[in-house]
Amino acid sequence: MHMANIGEFNLIAHLTKNLSAHDDVLLGVGDDCAILDVQSDLLLLATCDSQVEGVHFTLHTSSPEQIGRKALAVNISDIAAMGGIPRYALVSLILPSTLSFGVLERIYVGMRQEAEQYSIAIVGGNIAGSGKAEQLVIDITLLGMVERGHALTRQGAHVGDTIFVTGSLGDSAAGFYTLLHADRPYPQDAMQALRLIHQVPRPRVQEGRALSQLGPQIVTAMLDISDGLSGDLAHLCERSQVGVRIEVGQLPLSAALLAIATTAAQDPLAWALHGGEDYGLLFTVVAGKEQEVIKAVRVVSDTPVTAIGKVCSPDEGMQLLYPNGHGEKFIPDSWDHLKGK
Amino acid sequence: MHMANIGEFNLIAHLTKNLSAHDDVLLGVGDDCAILDVQSDLLLLATCDSQVEGVHFTLHTSSPEQIGRKALAVNISDIAAMGGIPRYALVSLILPSTLSFGVLERIYVGMRQEAEQYSIAIVGGNIAGSGKAEQLVIDITLLGMVERGHALTRQGAHVGDTIFVTGSLGDSAAGFYTLLHADRPYPQDAMQALRLIHQVPRPRVQEGRALSQLGPQIVTAMLDISDGLSGDLAHLCERSQVGVRIEVGQLPLSAALLAIATTAAQDPLAWALHGGEDYGLLFTVVAGKEQEVIKAVRVVSDTPVTAIGKVCSPDEGMQLLYPNGHGEKFIPDSWDHLKGK
Repeated sequence: MHMANIGEFNLIAHLTKNLSAHDDVLLGVGDDCAILDVQSDLLLLATCDSQVEGVHFTLHTSSPEQIGRKALAVNISDIAAMGGIPRYALVSLILPSTLSFGVLERIYVGMRQEAEQYSIAIVGGNIAGSGKAEQLVIDITLLGMVERGHALTRQGAHVGDTIFVTGSLGDSAAGFYTLLHADRPYPQDAMQALRLIHQVPRPRVQEGRALSQLGPQIVTAMLDISDGLSGDLAHLCERSQVGVRIEVGQLPLSAALLAIATTAAQDPLAWALHGGEDYGLLFTVVAGKEQEVIKAVRVVSDTPVTAIGKVCSPDEGMQLLYPNGHGEKFIPDSWDHLKGK
Repeated sequence: MHMANIGEFNLIAHLTKNLSAHDDVLLGVGDDCAILDVQSDLLLLATCDSQVEGVHFTLHTSSPEQIGRKALAVNISDIAAMGGIPRYALVSLILPSTLSFGVLERIYVGMRQEAEQYSIAIVGGNIAGSGKAEQLVIDITLLGMVERGHALTRQGAHVGDTIFVTGSLGDSAAGFYTLLHADRPYPQDAMQALRLIHQVPRPRVQEGRALSQLGPQIVTAMLDISDGLSGDLAHLCERSQVGVRIEVGQLPLSAALLAIATTAAQDPLAWALHGGEDYGLLFTVVAGKEQEVIKAVRVVSDTPVTAIGKVCSPDEGMQLLYPNGHGEKFIPDSWDHLKGK
């Protein structure tokens, strides 16, 4: 049996099944970050994510600075998804011998800019050659901190909670589409905006912090949208043992996305439902607390926060409800790094 | 200019030059681990190291279980080199689509065995496909803890200190040689012993702990021997701004190493001076405290501890002194992951 038939998440679950329990590991493999009790007032958050040339990026569709920024940003997003403060990064590079020093310097410039922006210290650097594979890999571990009792995980969603997302959905996927199919007459402003969202995603640290300050009694679960709405909702359902009903008419689609979809003759809804790498936050809120939560985010951010559905019983699974009353099963179809699409 | 002309350590130093200072980063890039103040009684140690197929290992010369063990062991050794306790591992895998599920499972079994042995919790798992490169990469970040005031770094060696190593030198390189040149009539016991040292290095956590309990007032500097004695002494000299005089007659060479060298018609001293991946500890001790230190290690370990030379002024650089009184410049010639040998 080969990896591609199993899929990334099943594989991780299988390999890490029945790991020994440790009292100081409050949350292990399976969420955006691990939560570790290091005998401080604050809990330690730890996450790692790699970017592989030809899989996650190419030097044709992103600048070296953008590649560096994004490699760190996707990890910052995991800390944001727990409501934490990103603090320390360890950067491991696998370098092809063919990569020029100038390109590597520019990747590092991007990474350092991103680190500066979030006051992250780069505290570790490891470099290895790629040997014959001649493929660039940027693998980053990011550590962060969060107040005790305030980390938001994928586990706490309850039936009746309202489901929210920050920002709009599918923009990154649409931007990526224009990079892969560059020869269409896209509207320039929309194309540039969506490409930038794909190339340099903005992790939602401020928004995550505002939500974690409210605490898990109000914001019951949270994760970032890295695999696409459908895939990340599936993670939420699995970890919280719930189902979800998503109102298609409520999904926040940007004007730029709609413009690009028209030129590309693509379904904008497919991008919004399944497109990965938006790096917005997906979270659930106790019924009745919606306005309080919206206000708390508005204090720190202009990013819109949109209610897109309700948490329901696990028997109901994942459902899409259309404005005309039609309902259908919402089948995850998001990016898997082993299976591909 | 290409990477291979610069070398791993110069490259890291260049890329991480003038990083912003952060009050809670007590030690950043450039030592075995970073030291982080997370407002706990203990300091947090963080290190990352990758193992790349075809560069650090092959599936022909190590079993999958050995590859998994070693990937974690080389990181444990970095925590040991600061005198810390290893605690939390994050495992990032880049998987070729051609790798069988069974082989991956066995790699993970090895990694989990190694983790169990040192009571390490595996708290993060990330998997990405390798795309066209079809090359396996195991990249691990390991976190550990050490008491305040007890971390041993590469920076504290002073003129007059005595230089020690644990265990014998060059065994891993000799074992690797027999794997690459498998057709010679090596003595079986010696061959098996040295191959195992190469395939499953034993990190010196107990010894490191005993040394860090004595504190940096007695054990002034420490690092692990991963790049080879000459390369790691060069790191010590650079970070502590000192020189070293090494007594060739004092270097601990194992009987197995000498036996293999005879069959292979190789210079055993070259392996001892430059061979990497022994993962013993290299440390410096204030003059007059040598016996106290030797005794402290003996309480926790049967591993021999050997004085091999003295710290001298930086003007003297690195010198080798032979038993016949001859002296020569000791020129580092150790493994560089970008340059190769």
